[in-house]
Amino acid sequence: MTSPDTPTVDDVFDFTDSEDNDAPFPPSYMVVRFAADVKPRAIAWLVDKVRGPRSHGGAELLVRRQHTEPGEGIILHVSASCRKLLELAEEMELKKRDQAGLMREFLFAHLRDFVGEKGDREDLLTTAERQLIVRHELDNIRALSEDPSIPGYVNFRMYEGQSIVQVMMHKLLITAMYPLHDAEALKLLSSKWYFSKEQPVEAIRLYFGEAVALYFKFLDFYTVKLLIPLTLVGVLQMALSTLETLPFFCVCNVIAVTVFLEVWRRRSNEAAFQWGTIGMTSLDEPRPNFHGTMMVDTITGRLLPQFPRRTTYIRMYCVSLPIVVLCLFLAFLVMLASFHAEERLTQLAKDPESGVTSLTVMAPSVIYSILVYIVNLYYRQLATYLTEWENHRTQSQFERHRVIKLVAFEFVNTFMALFYIAFVYQDMDMLRSQLATMLIILQLVNNVQEAVLPLLMRCMSKVPSPPRVPDSSTVRAPSASGDAKDSADTRGLRYRGPARSLELYPGVPEVLQGIPELDPDDPRQQQALAEGAMDVYEGTYDDYLEVFIQFGYVFLFSAVYPQAALWALFNNLIESRVDAFKLCRLYQRPLARRVKDTGAWQRAFEAIGAMSIVTNCGLLCVSPPLRRLAPELSQTEWVLRWMVVEHLLMAVRYVLHQAIPDKPEWVRVALAKLNYQSKQALRKERALKRRLSSRRSPWKPGQPSGQTHLEPRRDAELH
Amino acid sequence: MTSPDTPTVDDVFDFTDSEDNDAPFPPSYMVVRFAADVKPRAIAWLVDKVRGPRSHGGAELLVRRQHTEPGEGIILHVSASCRKLLELAEEMELKKRDQAGLMREFLFAHLRDFVGEKGDREDLLTTAERQLIVRHELDNIRALSEDPSIPGYVNFRMYEGQSIVQVMMHKLLITAMYPLHDAEALKLLSSKWYFSKEQPVEAIRLYFGEAVALYFKFLDFYTVKLLIPLTLVGVLQMALSTLETLPFFCVCNVIAVTVFLEVWRRRSNEAAFQWGTIGMTSLDEPRPNFHGTMMVDTITGRLLPQFPRRTTYIRMYCVSLPIVVLCLFLAFLVMLASFHAEERLTQLAKDPESGVTSLTVMAPSVIYSILVYIVNLYYRQLATYLTEWENHRTQSQFERHRVIKLVAFEFVNTFMALFYIAFVYQDMDMLRSQLATMLIILQLVNNVQEAVLPLLMRCMSKVPSPPRVPDSSTVRAPSASGDAKDSADTRGLRYRGPARSLELYPGVPEVLQGIPELDPDDPRQQQALAEGAMDVYEGTYDDYLEVFIQFGYVFLFSAVYPQAALWALFNNLIESRVDAFKLCRLYQRPLARRVKDTGAWQRAFEAIGAMSIVTNCGLLCVSPPLRRLAPELSQTEWVLRWMVVEHLLMAVRYVLHQAIPDKPEWVRVALAKLNYQSKQALRKERALKRRLSSRRSPWKPGQPSGQTHLEPRRDAELH
Repeated sequence: MTSPDTPTVDDVFDFTDSEDNDAPFPPSYMVVRFAADVKPRAIAWLVDKVRGPRSHGGAELLVRRQHTEPGEGIILHVSASCRKLLELAEEMELKKRDQAGLMREFLFAHLRDFVGEKGDREDLLTTAERQLIVRHELDNIRALSEDPSIPGYVNFRMYEGQSIVQVMMHKLLITAMYPLHDAEALKLLSSKWYFSKEQPVEAIRLYFGEAVALYFKFLDFYTVKLLIPLTLVGVLQMALSTLETLPFFCVCNVIAVTVFLEVWRRRSNEAAFQWGTIGMTSLDEPRPNFHGTMMVDTITGRLLPQFPRRTTYIRMYCVSLPIVVLCLFLAFLVMLASFHAEERLTQLAKDPESGVTSLTVMAPSVIYSILVYIVNLYYRQLATYLTEWENHRTQSQFERHRVIKLVAFEFVNTFMALFYIAFVYQDMDMLRSQLATMLIILQLVNNVQEAVLPLLMRCMSKVPSPPRVPDSSTVRAPSASGDAKDSADTRGLRYRGPARSLELYPGVPEVLQGIPELDPDDPRQQQALAEGAMDVYEGTYDDYLEVFIQFGYVFLFSAVYPQAALWALFNNLIESRVDAFKLCRLYQRPLARRVKDTGAWQRAFEAIGAMSIVTNCGLLCVSPPLRRLAPELSQTEWVLRWMVVEHLLMAVRYVLHQAIPDKPEWVRVALAKLNYQSKQALRKERALKRRLSSRRSPWKPGQPSGQTHLEPRRDAELH
Repeated sequence: MTSPDTPTVDDVFDFTDSEDNDAPFPPSYMVVRFAADVKPRAIAWLVDKVRGPRSHGGAELLVRRQHTEPGEGIILHVSASCRKLLELAEEMELKKRDQAGLMREFLFAHLRDFVGEKGDREDLLTTAERQLIVRHELDNIRALSEDPSIPGYVNFRMYEGQSIVQVMMHKLLITAMYPLHDAEALKLLSSKWYFSKEQPVEAIRLYFGEAVALYFKFLDFYTVKLLIPLTLVGVLQMALSTLETLPFFCVCNVIAVTVFLEVWRRRSNEAAFQWGTIGMTSLDEPRPNFHGTMMVDTITGRLLPQFPRRTTYIRMYCVSLPIVVLCLFLAFLVMLASFHAEERLTQLAKDPESGVTSLTVMAPSVIYSILVYIVNLYYRQLATYLTEWENHRTQSQFERHRVIKLVAFEFVNTFMALFYIAFVYQDMDMLRSQLATMLIILQLVNNVQEAVLPLLMRCMSKVPSPPRVPDSSTVRAPSASGDAKDSADTRGLRYRGPARSLELYPGVPEVLQGIPELDPDDPRQQQALAEGAMDVYEGTYDDYLEVFIQFGYVFLFSAVYPQAALWALFNNLIESRVDAFKLCRLYQRPLARRVKDTGAWQRAFEAIGAMSIVTNCGLLCVSPPLRRLAPELSQTEWVLRWMVVEHLLMAVRYVLHQAIPDKPEWVRVALAKLNYQSKQALRKERALKRRLSSRRSPWKPGQPSGQTHLEPRRDAELH
């Protein structure tokens, strides 16, 4: 919806990339794959919507059909004209830097402010943004009242306002929807990325979007600003290896963590401001899967699905919470059982007649590990399903509540066993060896599993010729939609497609002939097939999780294993490269996701920070060598002393948290300025409105003559 | 500064309350008293500023001189025309409820929206708001470059932009500045207030402003929603008087406190939204005493004093913090010394030959109490001075940092001794008796001291005839300015006026003849004199402090004294009436103060909430009867068990804090709506601006003819 005030832009810029079939088709921003057996009517109907005018619920996008062999699913390439993209950028309130260097909401009418007199308007929007815009438009094709169901599928009913693309993905008519890589940009990015000392965050953002960029910014900040100094301190502690300095080392650690997390929050807000995402709230436009009755939104006055927040709360606290707590409790019980079994077997093994060998003793922990792995897969599905059912309005809220559920479970599975060793067995050597194993071997294995293995697999399985179209049942739906089904799917479970008759089409059905086809030599067709066969990057969850677990190993137990920071540092230097490689080479290009912060992860890391105070004080308290340094104290006095230290550290943490502002001063000033300007504009607008309405009101205005020239058109615009 | 868009308001409303001397003078919103020996030139100069036009740095207010006898200080009554008040209300961005029931910023041009067709515009602004507006204007009379010093006082130099009224108060030329009570409104309010079950918060706000109203709202909420339920639980616990239920009672207490504070935050935000103060930030207009170089404000573009925030931080953390910590430490040492002296004397007293009587044993604690009282007075001055020197921008920031300093000191003085008794002596009976004394006797004494004593004093000292003008050296400056000197003064120290020759004027000096005099029979003159002699209400600090200390007594030690809530409840029912009476009858009318929350008090109460978890678990842990219930546990195990309970409660507190949103949903939606509308208005304005500038730019616009009618006047307005 461009504002009616934009007559001059067209005079300056030439927007003649036309819809006609002879013009070269602009880059494909989205590839849509249909299942092989979808009825052509449904496809044709969708394509009409995609190309149709907005006034009829269309998206006004450009579509080309890929040349397909009979029996293969139809593949569509979706693009948009440059003008359309810019108009949509304004509608989505994307923020861009103008010529004056100021970050502000892009306005189509101000195009010249952003690209300058000679600037190329093609460069204004990054490919990530274009893909995001096109995907947003596709998701926003909503069912009208005259569309009760998908043509050809009477049973696939839709309510008014439901996202048609989402329904078709849910019903497996669309099997995949993904953006394409940009080989040239990718080459440029990866050359910067693999070997640079610092993460090229801005370049990552331009190519992969804010969510991925923020993860790498965090990883970088954590490695450079926290791990490097603490490694130095840790090495010093190891060199001294005196017990007297150990408490100071721990205190230094926990305070460093607190300060680090506070400073990170500032940095992340700074980035969010520069990226124009800082103003995102839970009242923003709903995510595609959010459902509710279509009603006028109180805030924007637009027709949007509305769902009572109260119901979400009830579902969260009365259903999800008990279920999650029960799961955590069960996981804890299983952990205890495994420990007890191992203990029992160890005792039996001492008796040579029992027939228990030292190999059998390891059985419980092996079984436990396998069990954890399997249960984890199911729990992820459960968490995703529950969060979906809670029906959160925005993607950020959805992610946050899903991450909270998952992290709590991971925490129990990963750290509870270590706590048990530390505080119940009080076996520091065992704890230390466990930590070493985890930090050194497991991290290495992880990296191999993440990057080397898939690479080998692909090299072995891939024939040099362009890949064939994969069977539709193995193609994964993109996970960016956060759909429960998607997520279950991408977790490695195959679609059990609904029982539909598999018809093979001899050629392109007549009803689809109207869709122009891509040039048979167009390389995009090969690219679409090849990238369709690649794995889907599921978002930053797994990457954050890895860092989170490492963070726990390093800081929860720094009192017994000061060298942990060193191993973590070493790992992260590799990890960041592995992650970069993985994103650039192994995965389908992920859809850019706009985020304003690290969401639930900030809280999760803060929780570890708070816990590290408790565990470190606890570890120092139960450490026998340290205890021997103060033989004059009774055991109770000794414990109380550590309790006082712990509470003092907690107080320090609280004070630091309160004293360090969340946003840097300049961001606060800039936001206040924007807020002030907006308020002033609103006041002016209201004053103007008032005057206009008073002009038409019955009570005599008697205005000075200089103010009566306003056109009726302006009235209409302001009301 | 009215916007130029307001031609119609005057046509509808008749604003003819004129400046001429024959018209009745509108109500006096501010009374300004000068010292008896101030040079008439200075007064005349100030009056010119007060009455002068804005274009010359004046305030455009109305002034009348009170009839004074020779030798008495000049007294001025300041008022403003109805139109001026409304214009200033718009400028100060006061929020009012419009006819549609919506709370929004008042706009003079929309007057009709707020008062309706027949509404009386006089009723729109409350007297509290009028007083606030007039005071704001007086404070904002700033020195121009042609005013290097106050006329007649070459040494009293001013920098450009300094508040003249503040300088004159600081230099004791103005001895007092206060608003007048409104007898009729006060009668109405007090009849509602003294005997109603609920606090009439809205009526209080209208008469005394937001700060006082919020205090009473808090007191009411705390009494009704926290103390009443906990009294019931406490009585139940006392009735059962079983040790087994005591831990549950304590857990119930600490969780109730956490929930109460979270819910209060919501309530306070709700009120702030309804009162239109929720948007106040540290970047708002600076308070009068804020100093800095006059520069263009980044946010508003207005000329305002600017002071680097960094310097404030350096002063806070490098100077104030160490000084305050040192003071706290000294206070702690004095407390310890008093305890040790008492212990020593008690031992000596057992020996009849030492000559130490049981009376002498009490000496240390008596001396300690007196010392605390005296040191407290000085510490208040110190804290005010330091906070003033830190140079915070807004009044809220100033208050917050002052309150933090004061509360920390009060905490050490009040509770450290109790902690010592509880955890070092572990003498629960002594603790209990101390608590009972404090809660029952001290609170009663406080109430008597606050209300009964001043009333008696006044009755005895007051002759029934109208009071004489008090000697200028005893007149106190209003404390609302937060000036260090003021505060020192109102703490009971007399002004040591600068050595100036006391000249007695035989009549009104010629230079002041130009100021119109009030009618000799005008009752306001008596009122001004009588109220000038009344005590000054110093803001809500002392009232909150009383509640804070009570809150500490009740919740920090609920494990040993469950009936505390009962006594607190009993006290608060009296306290709220005493406070109401005090405000209505004993004090000068305080200037309304706009606040958005309880500031530092919220954090102070939250800190008590967190500490109550520690102290209650600690008290239960050291309680011998409870210990006897679990003889099978070793002392260390017993301590550890309580530690676990404590940490679990801490975790519950953290989760509750995270899970309960700070603002109710409807407030968030309303704020988001306003924000959205403002942003839309800004977009429109920018789009319009762009079009206008493009029309004048060299590159050919070729606009459709329908859009070229905009007047140049509109251009000017939008740029």
